[in-house]
This record gives sequence, C-alpha cells and structure tokens, in this order.
Amino acid sequence: MTNTQVTLVQIDNYGPWTVTPAPRREADLQTLQSRLYADFAQLFGNRSGYTFFARFDNMIAVTNGIDRDEHALIQESIGNRYPVTVSFSIGSGSTPADALEVATRQLQDAGSAQDADRQEILRGEPIPEAERTAEDVEIAHFDVNDATGRYTDELHAFDTFVHIEGGYHALMRHLHEEHGSLAFFVGGDNVIAVGAGLSAAEYGTAIDHVEREAGVDLKVGVGRGPDPREAGMAAKHALERCREEGTRVEGAPAAVERSERGR
Amino acid sequence: MTNTQVTLVQIDNYGPWTVTPAPRREADLQTLQSRLYADFAQLFGNRSGYTFFARFDNMIAVTNGIDRDEHALIQESIGNRYPVTVSFSIGSGSTPADALEVATRQLQDAGSAQDADRQEILRGEPIPEAERTAEDVEIAHFDVNDATGRYTDELHAFDTFVHIEGGYHALMRHLHEEHGSLAFFVGGDNVIAVGAGLSAAEYGTAIDHVEREAGVDLKVGVGRGPDPREAGMAAKHALERCREEGTRVEGAPAAVERSERGR
Amino acid sequence: MTNTQVTLVQIDNYGPWTVTPAPRREADLQTLQSRLYADFAQLFGNRSGYTFFARFDNMIAVTNGIDRDEHALIQESIGNRYPVTVSFSIGSGSTPADALEVATRQLQDAGSAQDADRQEILRGEPIPEAERTAEDVEIAHFDVNDATGRYTDELHAFDTFVHIEGGYHALMRHLHEEHGSLAFFVGGDNVIAVGAGLSAAEYGTAIDHVEREAGVDLKVGVGRGPDPREAGMAAKHALERCREEGTRVEGAPAAVERSERGR
Amino acid sequence: MTNTQVTLVQIDNYGPWTVTPAPRREADLQTLQSRLYADFAQLFGNRSGYTFFARFDNMIAVTNGIDRDEHALIQESIGNRYPVTVSFSIGSGSTPADALEVATRQLQDAGSAQDADRQEILRGEPIPEAERTAEDVEIAHFDVNDATGRYTDELHAFDTFVHIEGGYHALMRHLHEEHGSLAFFVGGDNVIAVGAGLSAAEYGTAIDHVEREAGVDLKVGVGRGPDPREAGMAAKHALERCREEGTRVEGAPAAVERSERGR
Repeated sequence: MTNTQVTLVQIDNYGPWTVTPAPRREADLQTLQSRLYADFAQLFGNRSGYTFFARFDNMIAVTNGIDRDEHALIQESIGNRYPVTVSFSIGSGSTPADALEVATRQLQDAGSAQDADRQEILRGEPIPEAERTAEDVEIAHFDVNDATGRYTDELHAFDTFVHIEGGYHALMRHLHEEHGSLAFFVGGDNVIAVGAGLSAAEYGTAIDHVEREAGVDLKVGVGRGPDPREAGMAAKHALERCREEGTRVEGAPAAVERSERGR
Repeated sequence: MTNTQVTLVQIDNYGPWTVTPAPRREADLQTLQSRLYADFAQLFGNRSGYTFFARFDNMIAVTNGIDRDEHALIQESIGNRYPVTVSFSIGSGSTPADALEVATRQLQDAGSAQDADRQEILRGEPIPEAERTAEDVEIAHFDVNDATGRYTDELHAFDTFVHIEGGYHALMRHLHEEHGSLAFFVGGDNVIAVGAGLSAAEYGTAIDHVEREAGVDLKVGVGRGPDPREAGMAAKHALERCREEGTRVEGAPAAVERSERGR
Repeated sequence: MTNTQVTLVQIDNYGPWTVTPAPRREADLQTLQSRLYADFAQLFGNRSGYTFFARFDNMIAVTNGIDRDEHALIQESIGNRYPVTVSFSIGSGSTPADALEVATRQLQDAGSAQDADRQEILRGEPIPEAERTAEDVEIAHFDVNDATGRYTDELHAFDTFVHIEGGYHALMRHLHEEHGSLAFFVGGDNVIAVGAGLSAAEYGTAIDHVEREAGVDLKVGVGRGPDPREAGMAAKHALERCREEGTRVEGAPAAVERSERGR
Repeated sequence: MTNTQVTLVQIDNYGPWTVTPAPRREADLQTLQSRLYADFAQLFGNRSGYTFFARFDNMIAVTNGIDRDEHALIQESIGNRYPVTVSFSIGSGSTPADALEVATRQLQDAGSAQDADRQEILRGEPIPEAERTAEDVEIAHFDVNDATGRYTDELHAFDTFVHIEGGYHALMRHLHEEHGSLAFFVGGDNVIAVGAGLSAAEYGTAIDHVEREAGVDLKVGVGRGPDPREAGMAAKHALERCREEGTRVEGAPAAVERSERGR
C-alpha cells in the first residue's frame, strides 16, 4: 500500500492551438513542449516532486507534499511565460493508478481538454499534512543490463531504440494491469515506476515478464519515502547496489501483507 | 526512394556521468535532457532540420541541407553551455534506416558511448549540395482519430497513454521492418515518420496494421521536400485535409515505382 | 528599518573559464549567463525571492524566508545542469547594503572568485524564522513617466537607452549612498530598489535628484512585506495608483522614525 | 568606416501586457525576458550575429549576413513559443549609430511600441550580399584591468557593481557621442562596443576618458570581420594579447583615413 498524490497536468486546448490559424512549425512545438516539461520538472522537482512527460500535452507528476497554493503559483508562472495555459487536477489513492483515476475524473468533469473556455482549472485536494507518512511514496528505478555494451555500441541505433521501447511497453502494461503502478520511460535505458507497494518477488516477476515478452533484461532498485525525491534517491542507490552485486532487485521488501494493500 | 540525411546525436559517456560521484537528482537530469533536446530542436530546426528525442541520450535528427561546419558550430555551442558534450555522426541513404545505419556504424567505430576519452566526435559526410533534389525527404505525420473525444475526455489518463503508446509501438515496428522508415512519438497523439517513399496504399496498410495490432485508429498526411521543414509542413497541411474530408491518407502518391526505390 | 536577507550568488572562477582553453563564443556566453539568471529568477522566485542579474557573474538575490537547505538544493541543481558551479553567501542587516556587506565579506574570506579550488561555497545564516516579521522587506518599483510616448516612439533607440541608463545610474548611486538601498535595472524603463525604510519625502528627494542629474522623470510605488514577492506585488499595485492618479510616490509612509531605523 | 547591419528588436506592446489584467509577478517577467534574450542570442548567434539585451524590451542585434527570410523565421519561432510577439527593423549605415537610426525610424513609422494593433512588424533591407566585405563589422571588447583582484575580492559587491557600471556609462556615452559606436555591458567586467572604425589612438583616448570620468581602468581588443562572430572572436584574441603583454589597446589600426570613414 502506498499513499500517492498525483497531479494530472493538461495543456488547455492544445491540439487546436497547434494548427490555428495554420499548422505551426514542428521544431517550435517540440521546443515549446520540452521546455514546458523542463519547467515542470524543476518547479515540482524543487519541491521534491517527480514529473513525467508522458504525452507532453498531458503530463503526470507525483506531488506528495505540494499543496494547493504551490500548485496555483506554478500554474500562474506557466501562464505568465508561455503562449498556452495549463490545468491541474490533484488526486490521491492507495495505488498511483487509483490516484490518477481520481485526478482524471475531476478534470474530465470540468470540461473537454479541447474546450476553449476551460482554462487553468485547479481541482482536487492534496493529502492533508497530518495523514502523510515517511513511506507514502514508492519509486522503482529500472534499467537495462549492459545496454551500452550489448545494444548502443553493437546494434543499429533504431534497433536499440525499438528494443528498449518494446521492453518499456511490456513493463508499463504489466505493472499497470497487475499492480496499479505507473511506469514511464525517462531516457537512455531507464524506466521509472511509481510503485504500489510490490514485494521483491513481484518485481522479479515483472522483470521475468519483460524478458519473456520483449527479450529485454532489466534490473530494478526500489525506494520508499515521504515524497518522490527521497523515494527516488533511495531507488537510485538500490540500483547502484544491483550493479555492484550483480543482483536484479534491491530495496523491495521480501513480502507485502496483502490486507494492508487493500487490493 | 528518398535521399535522407540523418545525424545521430549521442551524449558522450552520459550514463556514468549521471551516477558520478553519486546518483544525481532525477529532476535535474530530466531538466537537462529536455532542455538539451529543445536546443537541438531549435539549432537544427532553424536550419530546416527535424530532431527527435528518441532515447534523449541518443537523439536522431534529419539534417538534409545542414553541412559539416554547421554541425561543428552546434556541437561547440552545446559544449559551451552544458556539463556534458555530444558526438555527431552524419549518414545518408535511400531509406532513413540505411542512413542511420551508416551513421551508427561510424560512431561505433569511433569508440564506445561510455568511453571517457571519446568526446565530441564529428564523423560522416553530408549529401553534396549538387546531389540534393526538391524531393529528397519524405515526412509522414500521423495522428489518432478523435483522440480527445474518445480517449482523453473519456478514459483514465494512463489508459489513454498506454493505448496511444501501443499504437505508436506497432507503427514504428511496421514502418521500420517493412519500409526502412523511422517513426517517432512527438507528443499528444502524434507520430512523425521519416518515410522511405511509400505509396498511399502502403500507408493505408500500415494504418490497418496498427488498427489490428493495437486497436488504434490513425490517419496520415504525407509531404515531400528538399528538407524536413518543407516536407513536414506539406505533411501537416495534408493531415488537415484528412481532417476536413474524413480521409485517412493524403499527400502520398498512388503508386511508387519499385525500381526507382532500389529496394 | 528593514530586516533584509540577501544572497550573493557568484559563478566560481568564471572569468578564466570563459577563455580556457581559448576564448569561447560570445553568443554562447550570453546564452549561458541569461539562462542561468532565468533559473535563479525561478528557483528563488518560486520561494518568494527576487533575483537581480547585476553583473551576471555576481548576482544578488533577496531571499527572506529561504533557508539553508533550500539554498543547498538550488546550488546542487545548478551544478547538475551547467558547465559552471556557483557559490552562495547569505547575509542580513537593517539595510540591504549592510546585508550584502556581510554576504560579501563571508565569500571573500572563503577565497578568491578566481581560485579554482574555491567551489560551491555556502556560507552565512538566514534570518531565524522566529525573528521574521510581516514588514521585513521593502521594495520600491520605479518607472519613467511616459517613457514610450516621450522616448521609445520619438528618440533614436540608443539615445533612449543612454537616457534611461543615465537615470538608473543616478538613482542607484543616490539610494546606495544616502540610504543603503540597492537599486537594479530590470528591463524596459523599470528600476527596482530594495529599500531600507524610506519615507515618502525621501523617495521624492531621490526622484528630484534623478531629474536634476540625468533629466529623467520617475515615479515610484513602494510596498512592504515578509518577503520580496509580497513587498514587490504591493509596490506594483502602488505604482499602478501613481499611474491612475498622476502622483509620483505611492505606498511609502509619510515619515519614518529615525531611531527605529538605527542609522 | 564600417558597414554595420543592425536589427532593432522590440517586444510588441510589452509594458501594458505586464500589468494586464493585473501586475504580473516580477520573477516571471524576469524569466521571460532573459529567456527571450537567450533565444535571440542563439538564433542570431548561430547565424554569426551578436545580440545585446539593452533594455530587454528593446534589444539590439548586429546582423550582417542575416537576410529577411531568416529574420522572418526567427520572428515566427518566437511568436510560436512566447506569450508576446516581437517586431524587427533592419537598418545599415557607415556607423552603428547611423544603422540603428534607420532601424528606429522605420519602426516608429509603423506605429507606437504600445499600439495593440502593431504586431510582428518586419521592416528594412539587409545589406545586399554583393556589397558585403570581409571588414564590414568592427567589434571592440573591453574589460577592467584586474577587476577580480582589485574589486570583486576586495570591495563590497555593490560598490564593485556601481564602479563598473559607472565606467560602462562613461564609455557608452563617449563612444556614442564621439564616434557613433554602440557599447553594451555584457556581464562581469566586460563591455562590447560595435565600433565605427576607430584608430588605436581613438580607443586610447576613450580609455583615458573613462579613467578620468569614472576611475575605471580599461583595456580593449579590437577585431574586424564580415560578421560579428568573426570580428568578435578576433577582438577576444586581441584582448588576450593585451593580457599577455600588458598593453591597453590591441587589434586597432594605427591610423584611420578620415575620408574613408565619411564622417
């Protein structure tokens, strides 16, 4: 069981904007999107959050410890500096998927993503400070074993990319369907999952699944903390232990009490 | 047949850097990567190129019309402003995949991506100006039919993401394996493929394949030009025609003479 | 009397870096400096601070309410994303100049700005939370009366620039020498001063002085608050009142009790 | 005599935007302005131009070799990525001041900087390619002798800043009034002047003037070239020679034939 707070970030009415009055240059759209993402990475990140680019026009942040006023400030700051505005919806739940479901529903209730009148929505309630614990967030940091030696330095660059992408696709589906975890490709050969309290055996099963489905050989470091930064840094150190000791799962508990997880 | 010039962009020795002397904060790595990508989008883009983030530490640019000196200038500019350096390898070929294969091999020959002494490599030759034509580059711009109405406004945000990601995965594999084309997710519900001279029927087959494999319903606008900017803008306008007329392929030729394509 | 907390930000060993191993391209140095400044504007600004670019390699931030850990986080974030590192020194005092003097001395004591071994210094103590008040910071926001109508739309662009620059120079010297306030040009026809508790009459005298010395006609809105953001926003609203009512000083107290100011 | 091409860059209707519907947060305005400047530094800079931030809402670029289409592309790119638009006016002349006068007048003729209907103006003609020469642009790069040892490491940070600012102010006025040159502070203890063909003696006189007026001790490296990049890099190398040899002017001709300069 975790107590994950998720913020769904949606660029308001973005699709129509990209082709009005005529299609805008792709280089500029790519620049806009990636700088917007970089700003969220910093603005949430400097408050101990993690932001994932996902579809870029719909980003997903893990925001335990970030309150509504801080969300409002970030929203205003973006509106002051970009030609587009953003809406935020905050949800929480015992799994990241549950949290995101709450957030999604709230935002859909506020109107369509392509409704020109639905602007700068801010919905949902952060987890009250009194209910937060030191173990609320679980981060699992995966990478591919010897990706450089086996792929980057050996294969055609696109074959490497297709291969890693396939592994990511298998992993994201498995973790989502089986555990309500949300996994995101974060560059290189790295995937970060916002976990839902998996045991070491469950992480091992996920790795087996990806090996079988996509032929990609993963390892994972897992960390817990009150916010993504602490959980994520613990996960990175656990992943370093995998590297040093040749193991495939570090940092996850041997077993998880099911009743606790309430799934 | 196309005459595509591709530049493989690789951050030098990036993996080790991210964990030396200790793992660096993920928010900072994400910011660094996405800003670096935004810079390439502008630096190549303002010379009519297209850049795709791919794995972020390995990016792929289509660079018809950009010469070696301009590559050197971009490389120097990045080295002056980031804590990491980048290597470039330029290749060309009658399909994008062939061009990237040349580029990949040249860079692999220069040393490992994780060799601390292999820095700021610049290899390969741009297409000579005299051999360039007004039709060298093919861009195919795909999007999902009514993605907002069917998915974003209806489904759980991660379900939408998994769904679109699955469609992208099926498309990138098909286009790569069947045609030597390189397809990249570019945000929202958009995929841009660097084409290899497909007919309208072949694009239709690709769309059928994705529908069957992943249940995602695509349309595509196709454009040709001397460089990615012109080809890409023609593709965007063709995609607008799909929207207006309810068609699924616009801008691609009815048939392609095989001998011409040399495949 | 104010209780201003100032952070002196210094790029470590920057001068030598710009010419090693050979002079670096000016366009890249300008990009690096202005993006670095933009990052500080956001990183301090999203914690209610104000950052002034000053000399760019030595920036000055007003940081009431920002603690040492937050400074350390910002310092680490910059070090992770730029080819240069930064040192911070935090000082406080009853005038901004006094605060900056403390900060300057601490950093000079740590070694030369061009000592290659003096890196990522973090010295000085923020004002303890218990000693902070709702009136600690004074911001005075100046602009030039009808700058667009009188100058931008009428004069040669450089004459306008020289003129405004001259007004700024006269103002910064006067406020510094007479009151220990620190004034900075912030773009357009705007100067922001970090005040030291001036009366409306004293602000009027400063405006007279600039009119006499440089022929530039200013008005000013003044605000107080627990941090630069609140003080600065009050100052902006006061400046709007000047515009609406045709006055030249709004928001400053009629008189200031000298003993209180301790000067 | 030089043949300088200058582009005046003006943010359209910026002042009113910053306070509509209410004053916007200063941290966001600072971020917006400095990132916009960084983009121009790159976009003009990667085409061998130099950009100076000047007043930020009115920037001045030296753009020899950059044609109208490239200006239009840069203008469109900014409009696609920022909440504000920009106007450009291109002028040329035998002195930088003359060139800027042409540019200023053209833009003023198009309407007020605060006219909401005057948007994305692009006026003026670049120097025809056939009329360009290898010596069209003169860049003079000044710095303060031993600024770190005498000031940064010794004085109160604001005293250093006031001192350097005073030197800059004296220099910019002298060069503008006596020679039609445009000088800009570019950070640290550096001033870059776009020269109008001064002799070594004239640069020496300027340095004497600043010493006398402001007590600031300068040296200068001067370079010529077909564009700011080449001229500026030559100036930087000349400045390095000043450092090595203890001289105060390097790179400027012993004498300038007046008739040639046409002044």
